[in-house]
Amino acid sequence: MQNLNWERSDLIDESDEVVLHQTREQKQTLEQSSGIQVEDRNAGRVKITDVQVNGEGEKQIGKKQGQYITLSVPTLTLEDKDGFQQLEKALLTNFKKLHESIAWKDDDKILIIGLGNRTITPDAIGPYLIDHLHSLEQIDDKFVMYAPGVTGQTGYETGEFVAALAERIKPKLIIVVDALATRASSRLCKTVQLTDTGIHPGSGVGNQRQEISFEMLGVPVTAIGIPTVVDAPVLIADAVELMLRSIAARVAERGKPSSKLSLSSWQPDTNKELDMSLITPIFGEWATWSKEERQQLFEETFAASHSQLMVTPKEADYWIDKYATLISSMLTKWASEL
Amino acid sequence: MQNLNWERSDLIDESDEVVLHQTREQKQTLEQSSGIQVEDRNAGRVKITDVQVNGEGEKQIGKKQGQYITLSVPTLTLEDKDGFQQLEKALLTNFKKLHESIAWKDDDKILIIGLGNRTITPDAIGPYLIDHLHSLEQIDDKFVMYAPGVTGQTGYETGEFVAALAERIKPKLIIVVDALATRASSRLCKTVQLTDTGIHPGSGVGNQRQEISFEMLGVPVTAIGIPTVVDAPVLIADAVELMLRSIAARVAERGKPSSKLSLSSWQPDTNKELDMSLITPIFGEWATWSKEERQQLFEETFAASHSQLMVTPKEADYWIDKYATLISSMLTKWASEL
Amino acid sequence: MQNLNWERSDLIDESDEVVLHQTREQKQTLEQSSGIQVEDRNAGRVKITDVQVNGEGEKQIGKKQGQYITLSVPTLTLEDKDGFQQLEKALLTNFKKLHESIAWKDDDKILIIGLGNRTITPDAIGPYLIDHLHSLEQIDDKFVMYAPGVTGQTGYETGEFVAALAERIKPKLIIVVDALATRASSRLCKTVQLTDTGIHPGSGVGNQRQEISFEMLGVPVTAIGIPTVVDAPVLIADAVELMLRSIAARVAERGKPSSKLSLSSWQPDTNKELDMSLITPIFGEWATWSKEERQQLFEETFAASHSQLMVTPKEADYWIDKYATLISSMLTKWASEL
Amino acid sequence: MQNLNWERSDLIDESDEVVLHQTREQKQTLEQSSGIQVEDRNAGRVKITDVQVNGEGEKQIGKKQGQYITLSVPTLTLEDKDGFQQLEKALLTNFKKLHESIAWKDDDKILIIGLGNRTITPDAIGPYLIDHLHSLEQIDDKFVMYAPGVTGQTGYETGEFVAALAERIKPKLIIVVDALATRASSRLCKTVQLTDTGIHPGSGVGNQRQEISFEMLGVPVTAIGIPTVVDAPVLIADAVELMLRSIAARVAERGKPSSKLSLSSWQPDTNKELDMSLITPIFGEWATWSKEERQQLFEETFAASHSQLMVTPKEADYWIDKYATLISSMLTKWASEL
Repeated sequence: MQNLNWERSDLIDESDEVVLHQTREQKQTLEQSSGIQVEDRNAGRVKITDVQVNGEGEKQIGKKQGQYITLSVPTLTLEDKDGFQQLEKALLTNFKKLHESIAWKDDDKILIIGLGNRTITPDAIGPYLIDHLHSLEQIDDKFVMYAPGVTGQTGYETGEFVAALAERIKPKLIIVVDALATRASSRLCKTVQLTDTGIHPGSGVGNQRQEISFEMLGVPVTAIGIPTVVDAPVLIADAVELMLRSIAARVAERGKPSSKLSLSSWQPDTNKELDMSLITPIFGEWATWSKEERQQLFEETFAASHSQLMVTPKEADYWIDKYATLISSMLTKWASEL
Repeated sequence: MQNLNWERSDLIDESDEVVLHQTREQKQTLEQSSGIQVEDRNAGRVKITDVQVNGEGEKQIGKKQGQYITLSVPTLTLEDKDGFQQLEKALLTNFKKLHESIAWKDDDKILIIGLGNRTITPDAIGPYLIDHLHSLEQIDDKFVMYAPGVTGQTGYETGEFVAALAERIKPKLIIVVDALATRASSRLCKTVQLTDTGIHPGSGVGNQRQEISFEMLGVPVTAIGIPTVVDAPVLIADAVELMLRSIAARVAERGKPSSKLSLSSWQPDTNKELDMSLITPIFGEWATWSKEERQQLFEETFAASHSQLMVTPKEADYWIDKYATLISSMLTKWASEL
Repeated sequence: MQNLNWERSDLIDESDEVVLHQTREQKQTLEQSSGIQVEDRNAGRVKITDVQVNGEGEKQIGKKQGQYITLSVPTLTLEDKDGFQQLEKALLTNFKKLHESIAWKDDDKILIIGLGNRTITPDAIGPYLIDHLHSLEQIDDKFVMYAPGVTGQTGYETGEFVAALAERIKPKLIIVVDALATRASSRLCKTVQLTDTGIHPGSGVGNQRQEISFEMLGVPVTAIGIPTVVDAPVLIADAVELMLRSIAARVAERGKPSSKLSLSSWQPDTNKELDMSLITPIFGEWATWSKEERQQLFEETFAASHSQLMVTPKEADYWIDKYATLISSMLTKWASEL
Repeated sequence: MQNLNWERSDLIDESDEVVLHQTREQKQTLEQSSGIQVEDRNAGRVKITDVQVNGEGEKQIGKKQGQYITLSVPTLTLEDKDGFQQLEKALLTNFKKLHESIAWKDDDKILIIGLGNRTITPDAIGPYLIDHLHSLEQIDDKFVMYAPGVTGQTGYETGEFVAALAERIKPKLIIVVDALATRASSRLCKTVQLTDTGIHPGSGVGNQRQEISFEMLGVPVTAIGIPTVVDAPVLIADAVELMLRSIAARVAERGKPSSKLSLSSWQPDTNKELDMSLITPIFGEWATWSKEERQQLFEETFAASHSQLMVTPKEADYWIDKYATLISSMLTKWASEL
C-alpha cells in the first residue's frame, strides 16, 4: 500500500490573476503588465476561455508558458445529451486548432497516456479512457495507448514511464488525460481544460512527480484535464465565501440586515463588487477578509485531518464514464481526419 | 443511468441527545428522561460506546429501539496493523455478545447482505465484503451471501430483495453490511457501528427504501456500518464550528483576541464549554449561533449544488479493502465457533 | 473456493433424434412416432430451426416439452456487423412471437436473470448482460435484473434464488440468459437458442441444480442460451468423426484409398451417407463405429483428467461482449413495444 | 477489437528430443550429440527437470541456448495446500540459484513484467500477478512493475514496451511472467517453468512479437511460465495417442484383443515401448503412425475451425489466482533477502 499522488494541476482560469480581471479593461491591463492574455468566447452552450501565458506571465502566476483552453457547460447534468454533444463538438474544434500546425506523416505515432488511479473513482478518468479506446471496433493505428497507474503501484515515476516510451516510440504528439482538482465546486465534472503545456507540478514544494512536457521530452505534449475533485479546505472556504456574499448581496438589495436569513433558490451574481461591511454586525470583521485569507485560516485549522479528504460528486462513476466516452469519441474523430 | 441511493443511516452516537450529555450525571438524566442509556468503555485502543434505546427513546431521538455498539480507534491509520487487529478483536467480542442468545441448530442459515454500489468507492464496502467472503478457501456453509446492488441498477427495492430471500431461505439471522454517512469527518473510516435494529431510513421524508429489520422480516437483523462519507454541508458546518471553537479556546486561553491567528498543531478540547462571545469582534454574532443553525444556513445556501457532493478520504479504496477484510475475517471466526 | 457448476443445457437440435432426421420424410416420421416436430427456416443469413417437443417427445429424447428456436449464422465472425445485425433482428422477431400470447398490464414486471460465473470468461455471458442493461441510459421500468452468481460463491442454489424473487416480485415473465455447452465446436458463439421450457438439468445423475421453469415457479420462463464451450471428450470424438468422414468422403470420391492424405481446404458434406468401410485398411474397424461409441471410449479413457477441461474460442471475451450487447439491445427494443 | 496474440512459448521438456530420451544412457547420448543436457530431480512432491541447452542444442531443437528448470506437482489440485507450499519452496530455491551470480547494489531495480490479456482468463496470469504485487502492504522498492497488455489493445509491441522501460530504468534484472501453451493437457496448471532465456517466439513463421531477452535488451531476462492452455489439435492428437496406447498396453497385457474395451481407471505407463500392431485389427494401420503424424492430420483437417479454439481447465480462474499469489509471495521472499 502506497501513498496516493493526486494530480494537483489546477485550472488556469482559477488563477487569481485571471479571476480578478474580469472586465475588458482589466484584461488589457493584465495582458500588458503580466504577459497573460485572456479571451472569453461562446460556442452554443459551451463557454470557452482562452488563456495565453508568455514567459513574463509564467513568472507572474506560476503557470507554465503556453496555451490553455477551458471549455465549460455550467448547466451540464448527467442526462443532458445535448450538453455533452455540444461539449464534444467544441472540444473537437479546439483540439483540431491546437494541433493544426503539426505536419503528419503516414507512420507517425500518437502516444495517449491515461493518468490516474483506477481504484479511486474520481481519479479513474485516464484509465477509463484507455479502456474505452481498447473496446472500440476500430482503433486508429496511429495510437499507442497506456494507463501507467500511479507511482505507488508501479514502483516507478509516471513521468519516467512516459519518458521511456517517448524515447523509444518517438511519437509525433503525446496526449495526456487526467483528472484535475478545482477550486470551484460548481465546476466539478462540467469543464474540460486543453493545454499544450503538458502536465507540470505547481511551484509548491514537496511534489516530486516529474513534469510531462515538451521541455522534458522533446515531443509536443497536450494535456486534457477534467476537474473531478475539490480539496476539503478549498470547498469550505469556497462555501463560506459564497454564503457571505449571498447574504451581503441580499442585504444590499433589501437594504436591511437580518439575523437569520433564508436564501433558498435566489442566487447572487458572485462576481459583482459587494460591500461586505454591510454584514459585519452578524458575521464580524471576518466577512471583509479575502477568500484567500479565510482559506488559509481553514487550512491551518485542519492541517492534520481534512487535508486527507476529497470532495467529489456523488455520481462520480457516471460522470467519469461520460467523459471517458466523450474524449474517446473526440480523439477517434480527430485522428480519422489526419 | 439511475439515481444513487446513498445510505443515510447516521451513527447513533452522533445524535444530539447522545452528544450533548457527556458527563455521568448528564447521562443518568438522559436515561431517566428520554429512555436512552449510554455507556462508554475501552478495550485497549478501541473506544466503545453502548447505546440502548427503548420505546420512549425512539420517540425522543428518532432512532429505533434497540442496541447500538460503536467501536472506534481514533488514531487509526492505514498502516496501523495493531489498530486493525484490536478493532477486529473488539468487534468479534461484541458481535458474539450481541448474538449469544441465539440457539443455533445444525442447518440454520445466516443471510449476509452487502449493501451499496460497487462502482462508487466509498459505497462499495458491502459488495467488497461479499467478494472477500467468496474468495475464501473455506466458506462457512451457514452463510448465504449476496450483494444486491442498488435499486437504480436492478429495478427493484433492496429491501424487497432481502425480504424475498428471507421468506424463502428462512435464515436464523440476517447480517447487513453497509457504508454510512457520518457528521464527524474525523471519524471517517475509523469507526464501526453494530446494531440489532437493522437498516432503517430516518424520519426524513422522501426516502422510499424499505426498512430491513426484525419488524419487517420476522428475522433478527444485525447491521454492521462503517462511516465512509460526510455530506458537504455537514463538513462545512463542522469545519466552521471547529475553526470558531479553536479560536475562541485560544483567545480564552491567551486572554487576547487577535485578528489573524496561526492555529497550527494546537488542538482545543472540542467538548469544553466555551464563551464564544470572546470572538464576536472578529466573527460577529454568528459565532454564538449553534452549529445546527449554521449548518442550516449552509444547507439553504447550497441547496442546489453542494448537496450533490460527498466528502471521502483520498485513500478510500484502501480503507474499504481493509474493512472488507476485517469484517470477513471477524464473521468467519465467529461462525466457526457456533 | 467452491466447485464450478457449468451449465450443461445442451442445444435441442444436437439431440440425436433431431440430428439424424434430416430429410422431409424422415422429419414426418420423427413427428409421428416420437412427438418431435422439426422445421427449418431461413431469415437472410440466419438459419432458424424450430423444434416442438410434446409429452411423448419428452419421454423419447429427454428434452422437456415445449418450443425450442435455434438461430445460427454459421459464417459469423467478430468483425461481421451485418451478421450480428441480422441475428439480432431475427432474434427479436422470434422473441416477440414466442411471447405474443402474454397480455401485459401496466405494472407487470419482467425478471431478468443472468446466470453464470463472472470470473470464467465463457460462462460470463449472463452477468455481462446484466452489466450491459445497468449501463443503459434508460432502463425499462418493467425490468428487475440480477446476476445471482454461482452456488459455490453464494452458498445458495441459483434455482432457489430465482424462486425467492419470483415469489415476492410475482413477475409476468422470467427471462434467463445463460452460456451453454455444445457438441459442435463449429457452432461455438454462432448460435442462440430460445426456449419456453426454462433451464433444466438433463436426465443425468448428480446434478442437483434446481430447474428454473414454469412448472417450478408458476411463471413462464424463457431461456436464452448461447453455446460458448465444448467439453474436451466431445471435441475429441467430434474431431475424430470429422477426420474419418473427411477421408472416407475423399476416398469414395477418388475411388482409391491412400495411406497419408492431405485434406487441406476441401470440406466434405458432413451429413452425407458414407461407406466408412472404405477406410478400414488405414483406420481399422473402429472407423465404422458410431460417433457415440467412439465418444464413450474417449470418455472412459479420460475420465479423470480431460473431463476437467473446457474448450472455448480464443477470443471468448470479445464474443461474450458482443452477445451481451446484442441481447441487451434486443430485450430493450422488445420491452419498449409492450 | 484486435487479434489475440496468445503466447506460444512451449515448455522445453516437451521438445521431442527431451521427451524421447528417457533413460540415463539416452540422456548421455543426447548430451554428447546434440548439446542438450537433461537432469531430473525431486524435491518432496515436486519433480524438477533441469535442461541445459548450448549453442549446438539451440540449432538442434530450436530452443534457445540457456537454462530451463521445470517444476511440476503432477497430483496438484486446487485444494492441495501442501502441494502449493512445496511448489513455492522449490521455486524459491531454484529462483535463488538461478540468480546467485548477480551482485546486487543498493539502488538496483528489478523490472517485473506481467504479460498477457487480462480479459482472457487463462492468459491473465501476468496481469493478476502485478495486481497481487500492488495489493501487498509492503512492496519491495527494488521492484518496478507493469502489465503492458496485449499489442492489439495498446497499439504497440509488448517487446518494444519492455525495451523502452529497460532502456530508461536500466534494471539489473527483468522478470517476465506469462501463461504458456503446453502439449500435455495433464500438465495444465501443475507446472512452472523458469528460464534465463527470456521470452522468444519459436522458429515458426508469422510471429512478429519481439523477443524479450538478454540478447535484445542487454539485461538478464528471467521468464516464469505457467502452462494454462492446450491448442485443440494438440489436445486431440494427444487424446488419440493416449487412447491407442492405453488399449495397446491392455491388449499386450491380457494377450487378447477386444473390440469394445472398458478402460476406466487403469492407466498405462505412457512412456513404455508398446507394440501398436497388436491393435491394428481394430484401429488399422493408423495406430502405428507416430503421434506427430496423427497431429498433422488433425491440423490439416481442422485448419480453419479448431485452430481458433483453446482448451483450458474449467476452474481456470482459481488456478490463475493461486499461481499469481504463489509467484507474488515467492518473488517478495526472494527480493527481501537480496
